[in-house]
Amino acid sequence: MELVAAMQRIVGAKNVIYEPHRLHVFSCDGYVAEPSLPRAVVMPTNTDEVAAVVRWLHQHKIPFLPRGAGTGLSGGAIPLNGEVIISLVKMKKLLSVDFENLRAVVQPGLVNLNLTKLITGEGYYYAPDPSSQSVCTIGGNLAENAGGSHCLKYGVTTNHIVAAKFVLPDGEVIDVGSGFGDPIGYDILGLIVGSEGTLGIATEITVRILKKPQAVKTALAMFDRVEDASNTVSAIIGAGIIPAAIEMMDQLAMQAVDKSNYHVGYPTDIEAVLLIEVDGLAAGLEEDAGRVVEICEQNHVRMVKVAGSEAERSLWWSSRKMAFGAIGRVSPDYIVQDGVIPRTKLTEVLQRIADISCESGLPIANVFHAGDGNLHPLICYDSRIPGETEKAMRVGSEVLRVCVDVGGTITGEHGVGIEKVEEMRYQFGEADLAAQLAMRDVFNPGALCNAGKLIPSPARCVEVKQARWTTGRNAAGVEG
Amino acid sequence: MELVAAMQRIVGAKNVIYEPHRLHVFSCDGYVAEPSLPRAVVMPTNTDEVAAVVRWLHQHKIPFLPRGAGTGLSGGAIPLNGEVIISLVKMKKLLSVDFENLRAVVQPGLVNLNLTKLITGEGYYYAPDPSSQSVCTIGGNLAENAGGSHCLKYGVTTNHIVAAKFVLPDGEVIDVGSGFGDPIGYDILGLIVGSEGTLGIATEITVRILKKPQAVKTALAMFDRVEDASNTVSAIIGAGIIPAAIEMMDQLAMQAVDKSNYHVGYPTDIEAVLLIEVDGLAAGLEEDAGRVVEICEQNHVRMVKVAGSEAERSLWWSSRKMAFGAIGRVSPDYIVQDGVIPRTKLTEVLQRIADISCESGLPIANVFHAGDGNLHPLICYDSRIPGETEKAMRVGSEVLRVCVDVGGTITGEHGVGIEKVEEMRYQFGEADLAAQLAMRDVFNPGALCNAGKLIPSPARCVEVKQARWTTGRNAAGVEG
Repeated sequence: MELVAAMQRIVGAKNVIYEPHRLHVFSCDGYVAEPSLPRAVVMPTNTDEVAAVVRWLHQHKIPFLPRGAGTGLSGGAIPLNGEVIISLVKMKKLLSVDFENLRAVVQPGLVNLNLTKLITGEGYYYAPDPSSQSVCTIGGNLAENAGGSHCLKYGVTTNHIVAAKFVLPDGEVIDVGSGFGDPIGYDILGLIVGSEGTLGIATEITVRILKKPQAVKTALAMFDRVEDASNTVSAIIGAGIIPAAIEMMDQLAMQAVDKSNYHVGYPTDIEAVLLIEVDGLAAGLEEDAGRVVEICEQNHVRMVKVAGSEAERSLWWSSRKMAFGAIGRVSPDYIVQDGVIPRTKLTEVLQRIADISCESGLPIANVFHAGDGNLHPLICYDSRIPGETEKAMRVGSEVLRVCVDVGGTITGEHGVGIEKVEEMRYQFGEADLAAQLAMRDVFNPGALCNAGKLIPSPARCVEVKQARWTTGRNAAGVEG
Repeated sequence: MELVAAMQRIVGAKNVIYEPHRLHVFSCDGYVAEPSLPRAVVMPTNTDEVAAVVRWLHQHKIPFLPRGAGTGLSGGAIPLNGEVIISLVKMKKLLSVDFENLRAVVQPGLVNLNLTKLITGEGYYYAPDPSSQSVCTIGGNLAENAGGSHCLKYGVTTNHIVAAKFVLPDGEVIDVGSGFGDPIGYDILGLIVGSEGTLGIATEITVRILKKPQAVKTALAMFDRVEDASNTVSAIIGAGIIPAAIEMMDQLAMQAVDKSNYHVGYPTDIEAVLLIEVDGLAAGLEEDAGRVVEICEQNHVRMVKVAGSEAERSLWWSSRKMAFGAIGRVSPDYIVQDGVIPRTKLTEVLQRIADISCESGLPIANVFHAGDGNLHPLICYDSRIPGETEKAMRVGSEVLRVCVDVGGTITGEHGVGIEKVEEMRYQFGEADLAAQLAMRDVFNPGALCNAGKLIPSPARCVEVKQARWTTGRNAAGVEG
């Protein structure tokens, strides 16, 4: 096979996978659509190899797509068209670090948490913290503009990437952004971040690193009513406090978590719990935490407590971060939705979601980044019951429409991928989507690179539709 | 004249200027190139009128450009090709404000400071604060991705604009960004911010507003040596403190300011002064300011003082913000340069600038945002001396090359415009610039909209060259 031989010449025989039984693991990602086999997987080790691979594929009009750890939840790394997968897992070096200027240069395959591990000894860290951070890669985070619990204060991935070396879909290598200073000319770097692998492949990424905060205070607040918890979120922000994180879990999520290994002991009759974290210089942080407690009390909290030890804080965070997995234990299947709403609409939208749950008969748990208004409704269903998968998908779509209707969006951090490509039509008008398509066509005119993702085509191909409406078990249990 | 009649039909007779004597004021902006007359100026009052004007001009292949207050320092609003100027000054409404969700929707002609004035009573403000903020418009800020003294902590304009209604160069209207949540699909909004009016015209802009900080502490620190001041900047950031602002002035600037109305009484033998401001919740701010003072002392400060009153703070800030004007009093002419460097290179680069000043015989004052590494060397010269204007331009160019050579960029906040279109070739490689051009061509294929700015063409037209190398007196005395 000419393709395999050519790839082997570029990256070496051991870095090309083409045997069907070894390709299966690359047929899906965190979004469990119908698996679709790539024609090969290539694992380059540097920019030149990526460029050479892409150049060859482009010349031979063979479709391809980049892949990090494959933890994406919207299907961005699924080879719908039998693409050659360019896996970045062998490009996982920290290339350089400049502590004084707070910059690090990494390869795209470096695991998010590993960057922090490599610099933590010096007192620094990399801020974006998707729940999958122990496995997902910084290249994948760039592609999805990944979020995380602490993005309320620190911002999402796009706020932490300042420059990149980028291989265009024809194999040309460009430099975008700059190590220091804001973008010059058009902000192409900003365009690339969040482009879900449809514009090319980042092969060297310059990120901001941060000094670890001197101190952290974490409060756990339990509320009889969702409304009081929601009002508390708005009141904290309204008071001019910017916590590092404000996370919310509802009753169903708490109950699931309390059945798992992370037993906090939530009362069974409270409707919502908030996890509120403030960080910064030690001076004044006690007062900040005091203000947070006070605001909870003004909003009829049943119980609020500041963590007395790192162990207690860690238990609370684990119970939050493992909530998705916990839901997986109490429901045979679930779909993680991801939408954004204005903070002030929390009560209204959570009520609408509860109504949708009632009407459909499918339980919906809510575990989410309340401070950003970034909802993650977990729609529980059983794929063994005929028609229930489709019903769950419809319910998810309905929830997203509610988000858009109150002025929000169809995704906060999980991306569009193949999952929400149709919902883009609900979010945007025709002219808006035409501009988006035009953007793609500049870089990726033949759509050889990751076709069928992110932007709906005027005439969408049948394969995409099929993948989208076929789901299965979500084994990953991780989220952004 | 068909053009005038058509424009009058769309926006009304009183909103079209075509008489030559009234066009003169629109022939230049804050970058004093050779004036170039527009063929007409049109002042629409809403999105539909802007779209109709653009559609007509596009159909008739007549070049045009948008203009805010005309305070830009890089020539972005100069009608090099006799463009029809679409002035946004009549679109200056605050359309709506949502305090709870921290959003405001404004028209592009609203003056930056006026937005803050309109919401200050409720305790809110708009953060980006270019020195021209009392006259410049938010639409112009969007076009230039304007900065300001407090961008160290709060970020530049792109961090404060979340959505826009945008008229493309063919008159089509698109919505970009979203009021809540991060960008969905390609971040076209991010591309538009900082595109210097070359991609179209924003007609409704949704911005973040912020709660005013509870408290502010401002320190003034005087140093015998520039090196100590530079080290102090790095040490403050290195300590994990993010001040709202760290501004630096050198000896020449201080002397000029002390001769103006803002007499602070700087000792004549100190080499540098820092203005350092911390803000936030009152609790803990005293300690923050104490840490700043301590770090200054560790770095051999001669004198450091925290402002004891709002009057004192205000005097210090005025002396900083009026420094450009003050230089204008002691030098017949000056060029404000604008480059960015890594903070840790401050000492080295300031020394290089001093060397360049010595070699050229032209005095250079430095007044700048030290915390961001955003330099503003003011190159003093006398245009009445033959050849000195050209020499000052060459010196400016040389300074920018020094910035790029240490890993920085050719502009921090003043934009590229016509001023630095050639320096783009020093910043970027050919492939990078080709990508930039491709971006422009998506939106603006015939380059009818603000041609000759921002991106150097493969074959640059003679007019641009002429404008660039013809300068005059800079009367504005304002900067970003």
